[in-house]
Amino acid sequence: MSSAKSAPDESRPPACDRLWKNARLATLNPALPGLGLVENGVIAVQDGRILFAGDATDLPFPIKDAGEIIDCEGRWITPGLIDCHTHLVHAGDRANEFEMRLAGATYEEVARAGGGIVSSVRSLRKVSEDDLVKQTLPRLDALIAEGVTTVEIKSGYGLDLENEAKTLRAARRLGEERDVAIRTTFLGAHALPPEFKGNQAGYVAKIIDEMMPAIEAEGLADAVDGFCEGIAFSTDEMRQVFDAAKAHGLPVKLHADQLSNLHGAALAAEYGALSADHLEYTDEAGAEAMAKSGTVAVILPGAFYFIRETKKPPVNLFRKAGVAMAIATDSNPGTSPLTSLLLTMNMAATLFGMTVAECIAGTTREAARALGLVDEVGTLEPGKWADFAIWNIDRPAELVYRMGFNPLHARIRNGH
Amino acid sequence: MSSAKSAPDESRPPACDRLWKNARLATLNPALPGLGLVENGVIAVQDGRILFAGDATDLPFPIKDAGEIIDCEGRWITPGLIDCHTHLVHAGDRANEFEMRLAGATYEEVARAGGGIVSSVRSLRKVSEDDLVKQTLPRLDALIAEGVTTVEIKSGYGLDLENEAKTLRAARRLGEERDVAIRTTFLGAHALPPEFKGNQAGYVAKIIDEMMPAIEAEGLADAVDGFCEGIAFSTDEMRQVFDAAKAHGLPVKLHADQLSNLHGAALAAEYGALSADHLEYTDEAGAEAMAKSGTVAVILPGAFYFIRETKKPPVNLFRKAGVAMAIATDSNPGTSPLTSLLLTMNMAATLFGMTVAECIAGTTREAARALGLVDEVGTLEPGKWADFAIWNIDRPAELVYRMGFNPLHARIRNGH
Ligand SMILES: [Zn+2]
Ligand SMILES: [Zn+2]
Repeated sequence: MSSAKSAPDESRPPACDRLWKNARLATLNPALPGLGLVENGVIAVQDGRILFAGDATDLPFPIKDAGEIIDCEGRWITPGLIDCHTHLVHAGDRANEFEMRLAGATYEEVARAGGGIVSSVRSLRKVSEDDLVKQTLPRLDALIAEGVTTVEIKSGYGLDLENEAKTLRAARRLGEERDVAIRTTFLGAHALPPEFKGNQAGYVAKIIDEMMPAIEAEGLADAVDGFCEGIAFSTDEMRQVFDAAKAHGLPVKLHADQLSNLHGAALAAEYGALSADHLEYTDEAGAEAMAKSGTVAVILPGAFYFIRETKKPPVNLFRKAGVAMAIATDSNPGTSPLTSLLLTMNMAATLFGMTVAECIAGTTREAARALGLVDEVGTLEPGKWADFAIWNIDRPAELVYRMGFNPLHARIRNGH
Repeated sequence: MSSAKSAPDESRPPACDRLWKNARLATLNPALPGLGLVENGVIAVQDGRILFAGDATDLPFPIKDAGEIIDCEGRWITPGLIDCHTHLVHAGDRANEFEMRLAGATYEEVARAGGGIVSSVRSLRKVSEDDLVKQTLPRLDALIAEGVTTVEIKSGYGLDLENEAKTLRAARRLGEERDVAIRTTFLGAHALPPEFKGNQAGYVAKIIDEMMPAIEAEGLADAVDGFCEGIAFSTDEMRQVFDAAKAHGLPVKLHADQLSNLHGAALAAEYGALSADHLEYTDEAGAEAMAKSGTVAVILPGAFYFIRETKKPPVNLFRKAGVAMAIATDSNPGTSPLTSLLLTMNMAATLFGMTVAECIAGTTREAARALGLVDEVGTLEPGKWADFAIWNIDRPAELVYRMGFNPLHARIRNGH
C-alpha cells in the first residue's frame, strides 16, 4: 500500500484530509443489500470522520484533491470490528481449573479447590488498578491486532464498590493506553460475593443504594448489565437493578437465558435494553419482544464451545422475528478465554449456522447497535468515525472461513 | 529477556555456544513423568544441538562458561511445536463453498457449482511453483509465529506427476524460505483425478508405476500417504500403494477411519505405518494393532469441528491400548482452514477431552514420532536439535486453555 501527499495547492485547502482509493468496500450501509458491497470504492476522511464512502465515480471531487491519498491496491475494507461483550479486565486466569476438569475433576472438586467465579473475584480484589491494566493489555492487543476498534468491557469480578470501580477505571485507562474506543458496563449483578452468602437481597440493595450511585457519579459506566439465571439473579432482582439504572439514566443489557429460560430476553425487551446476550434458551415470545423493542441479540459462541453446551441460541427465531444479531467474544477467564473476534465469527457460522453476512454485520453494525453507538461507528457511512480495517483477502467470506489466521493489512481509527 | 556475552577467556573455548538460564522447562523427556517439568531449568546448546537440558544444579559446568547466556526470567520453554499433518501447500481457498453452505446450499449444489476437492485440484494445476510458495508463506508464517519449528506437508491436489512434484518441490522450498524443518509426504492417493473418472485402477497403477518412482528418484517425498475411505481408495488399493512405498523404502501413513470404519487403522498398523490419522471410527482391534506396531494416532480436531462431525475419535481406546497420540492442524482449504496449532490443542481438549499433557505431548514428542523424527526433535534432551519455544505463560496449561491468543516470547531453531 503506498501513500502520497498531493502537490500543495496554495489557492485552496484539500478536499479532505485523507483518502483511500482502489478499495473494495463492505460498507454495511443498511440502505444497501447484504454487506453493502462497493467494488470500485473510495473512502474520504475529514477531521477523523467519514466524508464519503462509496463508488469512486460518485466522489464529489477529484481524487487528486485529497490531502493524502492511500492506494489500497484492490484490498477489502470493512468497518473496524467491534467486540460488544467482554469481561476483558480480570486478574489471573483459570487455566488450572481447565486442566483439572480435563483430568476428570467434577465441578464440585474444582469448587472445593477454590475454583469458579469466586477465584476470579479473589484474584481481582488482590491486584491494583495498574496491575489490572497491565494484565489486560496483551488481551486487548490481541483484539486490536485483528482490526478491532471498539471494545465493550464489563466489571463483575469486584462485587464491591472499591473493586468494581477499580475494574471500570482500569477499563477506561485501556482506552488511553491504546488507540481504541472502550465502552464500560457495570455488572455488579454478576454473582453473589462470598461476604453476602445467604443474603442475596442485601447484595442487590448494596448494588442499588451504594455501588451504582457512586459509579454513576464518577462517570465510570456507560451501561448496566446483570446475570439473570438460577445460579445468579432472579428476574425480580434484575427488575430492581434495571429500575435503578433507569433512574440514573443508564441504558441496560442482560445476560439472559443462557442455561435455562427465565424469560430474561422478554425482561430485557420490556426495559428497552440495548441487548440481551447468550440467549440459548430464549423462546419465540422472547424473540418477538426483542424485535419490538429493538433489543439486539448478542450471540456468544465462545462460551457455548468452551463449556460444551449443546443447546444453541435460536438463530432462526431471531431471523424470523427480525431481531438484530451481534456476535462477541465474551472474553473471560472462566467460560470463554477467547481473544479473537475473527475466530468468534467462525464459531458463530460453524456452530450456529450464521451466514457470512450475519457474522460480519454482527461484529460491525449490529455490535455498534448493541452498544448504542450505531450512529457513530459500525458502518462506512458519511458522518461516522473513520474506524475501519483493511484486509488481505479476496472476498469477505474469508474473514469467517479461516481459523487461527489474521489477514489484517491495516487498521484505521478516527482516520489514522 | 537479556543476553550477555561472557568475558572472553583466552585460555580455553566456551563450555557451549549458547545457554538459556532461569527457565522453567517442559522437557517432554519420556523418562520423566507427565510433561517432564523442570522448575530451575537451563538449556545449553552446542553446534545447534542440545548439550544439556535440565535442572541448573545438574549442569556439568558453571553457567558463566557458556559462550552466550540468555536470561529467560522465569519463562516456560517447551520443545518447538510440530505440526505433523498438513495440506498447507494449496492454491486459492474454498471460502466461497463455506459461504454457500452457510447460506443453505447442499453438497450437491456446491459440487455442481464446481466446488469440492476438484476445485482445489483445478486451482493447483493452474498455478506455478513460485505462486504456490508465495500463496503458502502466509499460512506457514502463521504456524511459525506460534513456535512451530517442524511442519509436515502433503501433496494430493495435483493428482498427476507434474503437479504432485510441483507441490512437493514447493514444500521443500518453504524450508529454504523460512527457518523451519519441512517434511514432505506424497499423497497421490488422495482423490481420483477427473481425467480418470471410471478408472480408479488405472489411477492407482499410475501412482505406483509412474508418479511414485519419479518422486522418489527426485527425493521429493519423506513418506507416502493415502486416503482410505468409501469416497476415496479401498484397503486393497491402499495395500498396492503401500507395497510400492515399501519397495522404494519410503515409510507410510494413512488417512484412516474418518467417515466410516474400513479398518484403515489396522491396515496402517499391519504395514508398520508411522501414523494413522483422523480415526473417528477406529475400533478396539484397530487401536490394539496400532499399539503393537507403534503407529501413532494423529488426532485432527480442526476437520471434526469444521465439517461438524459428531463421531469422536476413541481417545479412551487409544489410552487403554497405549497408542501414542499426536495432534495436528490438518490445515487444508476444504475441511480445515486452520493455521493455529495452539487452537488445535484447545480443540483436542475441548472437543475430545484430551488432557493438557496429552495436547502438549501431541504437538511435540508424539508429533515427532508420527514423522519418524523422535530421535532428532520433539523433546528437550541432549543430542536433539535445539528447537524450542519460550512462552509468556505462568503454567503449561495456558497453551491449551486460551483461544485465539499467542503467548510466544521467542522461537529458537537449531540453537538460534
Ligand atoms: Zn458475559
Ligand atoms: Zn489430511
